[in-house]
Amino acid sequence: MPQPSERLAFAIDLARRAAELGMKHFRSLDTLTIENKGHQDLVSNADREVETFIRNALAEAYPDDGIVGEEHASVEGSTGYVWVIDPIDGTANFVSGIPAWCVVLACSFEGTTEIGVICEPSHDETFWAERGKGAFLNGKPIRASQSPSLAQGSVATGFASRQDGDSVVRLIADLVAQGGVFFRNASGALMLAYVASGRLIGYVEQHMNSWDCIAGLLMIEEAGGEIMPLDPATVVVHGTGVIAGGPHVFPQIETIARKAFGWQSVTPAP
Amino acid sequence: MPQPSERLAFAIDLARRAAELGMKHFRSLDTLTIENKGHQDLVSNADREVETFIRNALAEAYPDDGIVGEEHASVEGSTGYVWVIDPIDGTANFVSGIPAWCVVLACSFEGTTEIGVICEPSHDETFWAERGKGAFLNGKPIRASQSPSLAQGSVATGFASRQDGDSVVRLIADLVAQGGVFFRNASGALMLAYVASGRLIGYVEQHMNSWDCIAGLLMIEEAGGEIMPLDPATVVVHGTGVIAGGPHVFPQIETIARKAFGWQSVTPAP
Repeated sequence: MPQPSERLAFAIDLARRAAELGMKHFRSLDTLTIENKGHQDLVSNADREVETFIRNALAEAYPDDGIVGEEHASVEGSTGYVWVIDPIDGTANFVSGIPAWCVVLACSFEGTTEIGVICEPSHDETFWAERGKGAFLNGKPIRASQSPSLAQGSVATGFASRQDGDSVVRLIADLVAQGGVFFRNASGALMLAYVASGRLIGYVEQHMNSWDCIAGLLMIEEAGGEIMPLDPATVVVHGTGVIAGGPHVFPQIETIARKAFGWQSVTPAP
Repeated sequence: MPQPSERLAFAIDLARRAAELGMKHFRSLDTLTIENKGHQDLVSNADREVETFIRNALAEAYPDDGIVGEEHASVEGSTGYVWVIDPIDGTANFVSGIPAWCVVLACSFEGTTEIGVICEPSHDETFWAERGKGAFLNGKPIRASQSPSLAQGSVATGFASRQDGDSVVRLIADLVAQGGVFFRNASGALMLAYVASGRLIGYVEQHMNSWDCIAGLLMIEEAGGEIMPLDPATVVVHGTGVIAGGPHVFPQIETIARKAFGWQSVTPAP
């Protein structure tokens, strides 16, 4: 494993500490108390507390870097580095007691993702990548799936209520018609980490926020997978459409996704 | 917790030991070696070894009970009790390194499920139920979701390549159109246990084998959820269609499922 940069080493440690904090809440969770609140949009106290913990640590260590996250206002920086954070990805799992959620930290420089860390504490799995230096799971190199066809492996998808329901149905219909299998465990970042580590063969979602996807997408690139290119000018603030997969299945997944979402085949996604 | 029957106590212990055996294989799994084999239909050595372990233990403890499972021939019994076993449910997850698989043991008496045990060793979670005596997770009572609507919670589905692809697409389309969210983590038994424990609000699949579903369906009934009735005359050998859910959302889920699969609303599913 190449020597991680100072920011990566910091991010790995921070993600693990933040996930440990999340686990304290997760273990004590009484699911009965959340039944009458909303579901996908439910933001637990844990989510806010973990985000505050991360923001305070970043502000102390890198006071001149920017911060972008889901819950609080963005912090402008002056270094060109922007931390893009999701304290708990898979909140719906978290609140209902399903052990598939993670802490996500990314750091981008002028819009290009340089560092990604995804910590899934229920299994003590921390995935990370640094641009040009490879992708790792708990320190061991990972590799995207070499699956030769959609018949060998599952393609993950996300679905948020803000999205067009018809398009996800078209996506699944075409995937199944071409012999594929869909997967959705309701933590987008974790599923992207699973693509980077070859556990899933691809991932498609019409729109993801930057804090949900840029860490995992960097891992996939660094693990030898392919992704639809991101637009450095817009991705951090506006998010992006996501297509990713192992190198052999990526072209077929891309075709299915672009058809389902009505995206042109020659331009980056909106 | 009521005193478990002798068979239940035996089954909980056996499922945990079998899962531990599976974990030894899972931890040492080199995913690279399985890339060129099939996916959904892949049966690993671990699967066969765990099934043999379970069968031997059952034959020793209950030599006159019957046994039905996926991999080996059925054993006829003379007591009326039949053990219905799935050594590793979620094989595709198992072989690709996704920590969402479980050991499933059920015991039925003359076609009616009396005992169900689902052990998910990655999180040390063992779910069990005994007819008339409640459902439990690691000894604590569990309860099906009290969610009042599809907008609050996820409905799981399974999909095997032997099934009609169009019907699962119709199912997801109607679910999404009615404000619901789908979930598929590729371990049917585990998702059923999640319905029993209120983590998911429902489950639908066009056809499941008995070893994948009867344990979880008993848990759901015992946890206060609803299921489409099973046919004791056929379920063990031929499997069943599956509709299950929390008590408030079940009717809506049932309507969606029956429409998607073309099932009459007045007869049990095929």
